[in-house]
Amino acid sequence: MNMTTANTARLLITCEDKPGIVQAVSSFLYHQGANITALDQYATEAQGGRYFMRVEFELEHLQTRKETLLQTFEINVAQRYDMQWRLTLVSDVKKVGILVSKVDHALLELLWRHARGGLACEITQVVSNHETLRESVENFGIPFIVVPVNKDNKDEAYAQIDEIMQGNDLLVLARYMQILTEDFVAKWPMQVINIHHSFLPAFVGANPYKQAHEKGVKLIGATAHYVTTELDQGPIIEQDVERVSHDFTVEQLRELGQDVERNCLARAVKWHLEDRIIVDGNKTVVFQ
Amino acid sequence: MNMTTANTARLLITCEDKPGIVQAVSSFLYHQGANITALDQYATEAQGGRYFMRVEFELEHLQTRKETLLQTFEINVAQRYDMQWRLTLVSDVKKVGILVSKVDHALLELLWRHARGGLACEITQVVSNHETLRESVENFGIPFIVVPVNKDNKDEAYAQIDEIMQGNDLLVLARYMQILTEDFVAKWPMQVINIHHSFLPAFVGANPYKQAHEKGVKLIGATAHYVTTELDQGPIIEQDVERVSHDFTVEQLRELGQDVERNCLARAVKWHLEDRIIVDGNKTVVFQ
Amino acid sequence: MNMTTANTARLLITCEDKPGIVQAVSSFLYHQGANITALDQYATEAQGGRYFMRVEFELEHLQTRKETLLQTFEINVAQRYDMQWRLTLVSDVKKVGILVSKVDHALLELLWRHARGGLACEITQVVSNHETLRESVENFGIPFIVVPVNKDNKDEAYAQIDEIMQGNDLLVLARYMQILTEDFVAKWPMQVINIHHSFLPAFVGANPYKQAHEKGVKLIGATAHYVTTELDQGPIIEQDVERVSHDFTVEQLRELGQDVERNCLARAVKWHLEDRIIVDGNKTVVFQ
Amino acid sequence: MNMTTANTARLLITCEDKPGIVQAVSSFLYHQGANITALDQYATEAQGGRYFMRVEFELEHLQTRKETLLQTFEINVAQRYDMQWRLTLVSDVKKVGILVSKVDHALLELLWRHARGGLACEITQVVSNHETLRESVENFGIPFIVVPVNKDNKDEAYAQIDEIMQGNDLLVLARYMQILTEDFVAKWPMQVINIHHSFLPAFVGANPYKQAHEKGVKLIGATAHYVTTELDQGPIIEQDVERVSHDFTVEQLRELGQDVERNCLARAVKWHLEDRIIVDGNKTVVFQ
Repeated sequence: MNMTTANTARLLITCEDKPGIVQAVSSFLYHQGANITALDQYATEAQGGRYFMRVEFELEHLQTRKETLLQTFEINVAQRYDMQWRLTLVSDVKKVGILVSKVDHALLELLWRHARGGLACEITQVVSNHETLRESVENFGIPFIVVPVNKDNKDEAYAQIDEIMQGNDLLVLARYMQILTEDFVAKWPMQVINIHHSFLPAFVGANPYKQAHEKGVKLIGATAHYVTTELDQGPIIEQDVERVSHDFTVEQLRELGQDVERNCLARAVKWHLEDRIIVDGNKTVVFQ
Repeated sequence: MNMTTANTARLLITCEDKPGIVQAVSSFLYHQGANITALDQYATEAQGGRYFMRVEFELEHLQTRKETLLQTFEINVAQRYDMQWRLTLVSDVKKVGILVSKVDHALLELLWRHARGGLACEITQVVSNHETLRESVENFGIPFIVVPVNKDNKDEAYAQIDEIMQGNDLLVLARYMQILTEDFVAKWPMQVINIHHSFLPAFVGANPYKQAHEKGVKLIGATAHYVTTELDQGPIIEQDVERVSHDFTVEQLRELGQDVERNCLARAVKWHLEDRIIVDGNKTVVFQ
Repeated sequence: MNMTTANTARLLITCEDKPGIVQAVSSFLYHQGANITALDQYATEAQGGRYFMRVEFELEHLQTRKETLLQTFEINVAQRYDMQWRLTLVSDVKKVGILVSKVDHALLELLWRHARGGLACEITQVVSNHETLRESVENFGIPFIVVPVNKDNKDEAYAQIDEIMQGNDLLVLARYMQILTEDFVAKWPMQVINIHHSFLPAFVGANPYKQAHEKGVKLIGATAHYVTTELDQGPIIEQDVERVSHDFTVEQLRELGQDVERNCLARAVKWHLEDRIIVDGNKTVVFQ
Repeated sequence: MNMTTANTARLLITCEDKPGIVQAVSSFLYHQGANITALDQYATEAQGGRYFMRVEFELEHLQTRKETLLQTFEINVAQRYDMQWRLTLVSDVKKVGILVSKVDHALLELLWRHARGGLACEITQVVSNHETLRESVENFGIPFIVVPVNKDNKDEAYAQIDEIMQGNDLLVLARYMQILTEDFVAKWPMQVINIHHSFLPAFVGANPYKQAHEKGVKLIGATAHYVTTELDQGPIIEQDVERVSHDFTVEQLRELGQDVERNCLARAVKWHLEDRIIVDGNKTVVFQ
């Protein structure tokens, strides 16, 4: 870890929109001696809406000064504006667990990008309901754990998965073909990213490529979103599409679609790891 | 009209897929002395599906030989393969009527492309349920006719529109905000193209940009489709999307969306005019 | 003009990157009573590079307070950081002159978007070296002036055009097929936007679609850029492409390319009008 | 191998454009008992240009009948139209050798797609001028051979590589950072595919991302092309781009660009393997 990384932090803020927020935050950071390296803001309305802000800054001796910084910001700035906020240090590398079933393209894209240094996280383990992908995962030196799931053991299975995943900051469903229990989802709020193989809200549910083929659409897509208790309805993080024509079979739609899925998921995970996403109700604010 | 245009025809064929169709069609044309300038085919299955073909060819003295050609093809080729088919002459310029309400972007795109020679058709008239766009249309030298439509006069109104539109080959709904009667639609099967301002099947019905905004999608789109009696469910001809982000207002989604709509509709109309589309159940085969 | 528009201003700043700039600017605006509605910044290096900032804010009684605001900002903030800066009022509608030759697509896109309220400017006049487009322009109620240009009268012609264009904030070359004189370009620094019909730096110079056809490229593009004395080498504002295949003729490349050109140019002009562009040497910073 | 694969062949034809070619080819195949499953054609001019055709067909007992088929086609059809042609059997799986230096993204994309069944070929070996990627390659069970190349041993090195690669149908330069000798290129005409990391013809030569950054382009791209003796000038097979902005560093351009490169190269290789490409002078005809 170089000094820049060690001294870089990100501040994410949500509050009611009022004049003076930029001034308050930037003055606070200036007087702490911080150098702002990125600043993005968004307000839902011209006046009186919700306000979102992301600031990236460098501050010497950040590690040792962190606690004081948190307290001072809370008292001097956050309380004044009734902010929901969090500060993350780039040096606190996020831990990520992956869930997968039998299809490997989304999983491998993540493992591969991670191996090449493109995803700033630690991938702690891959959990699957099948043995199929053990070798692929273990080749990357990452633990592979099978937790079978069926109608009768759902609660036990997810209790077990929850236990395995403890300590992770993010779970990624890389084409995990089981529906999580409400209980499980509630324990990981806005911490589970799923890739759905359609341009949601079109083709909710199973077999979206079959649905797309039957409907004769001219574009197919993929949607990366946070998982909520409503199936395929959580806040959308990223979407992408590819052009297709009448002569694509369901199989060819699937093949092309997998390229869309893996890139779309990789972008969503990257943005989450870089603290670029703030959830706003059933939508996301993504500061790119 | 130059000689090439005068002597160019397009043959569109649908039938059960069997060996020998290409041979039969190309031999027929060869022995007539025709020169094939474009040939596209598509079969829904590797074997035993439906078969679609589009052939463009040049033949000397086409105008005078047309009738004989039609008869000979029917007897010697079409009956053998139980083909549904049609032959169109490029010199038979198609007549197009446009229906519009108050928003002008899709209409103007068509009028403008037509004026610049980009749409091979005659635009016979524009019918609207409002006076709003009279000047814009008449500036192009095209008749503008208002037929008010309300709950109580629907049948009479569409009877009147049907009468006005007689002689046209194609009707285009360039953001016409009325729902056509079933009776009217039945009279113009696969002859009415609509532009819907969403990536169907997402956001069927009214206010798609508002729906898209509430859902927080990251792409907005448009769909050009043939009109059937099921609202927004007819065969899709063309779709396109543009990338958006959280900070687009409904109004900005609409503004960007209008650029997608007008280009998407223009392509669909162009392909129809060039006889590139064959309808296959609730889908289209588009030979580009 | 509504009150929001009347009270909205944009501040564009370029300076050496140093800690405290955001704080200084936002504090200044806060103490003036302004509400920041958009803020973007960019630094060319993590440390010690050039710094660029765009702030949009609302301030009551902006019109009457403008002069004091300018002076106070200069003394209290700008001098401290050695800033190059400008403040523009949204209510000061920019004046735009267009130059065109015979081809109309780029021109009409601008006139049309302007007529529909999509470009916040006044189009003062269109100057051409040909009579061809007089009717198209005058239909929009905009003066059309012909200034013939040939080898022998270049200096006089551009002196005349310069005089005609006095009072404009921006000139747009909407497929103007003459090369401006160095003298003329020097008088309008970073105030002339051109649309080049290729993906620069590929296919500099004449006949780019012919060059693209001969090279067999699989994408064609367009580039909107500021005009400098080096032909086709000025700072790039926007670029876009469309996919093509081997069977496009030069004419078809041109037809498709024109759609790319007109949209690309329209975006560049819109960004300029909204003060979203800062020129940085031979490049642009575009705050979208 | 299923029966369909065993009995499927592709016929690629280049000749002068004359009436009757479709008829001659389809009649020949019909009388052999073949079923045409795909047919594409292209002529460079409306009349009198060069003509290109790709036909995919199924024929029972293809393996045993192949020799007779070749002879009969040559005598009965090809000679009549003075065709250059080739027939490939889908069951004759193509052999592919890869050349790579130190950067792995393009290589891994190919190995990975191949492992997942997305590239119909046998990857026989990977040759590199560095040891760096040995483990990555051998993990896939593919031989990895190092042939160092420097100024003094170029001729010997390429003689060695040529010998190693004997028996392959295609060589792929997956970011191989050495310039092949003219002699080597001459031995593998239109059998070597390279991925160049720019939208050619922009940014020919070394460090294209640095060039793109200095030029301030708003899109970056990649180009897959056949290698000829002119550096970066061979027939273009496929190109693609991604949108970038002023705030991309050279490193970020490279990172995003690598995603474009690997997908662009993978498509080009796939099309080559499926016999979809015919070279026409310095251009390609790609039948998709």
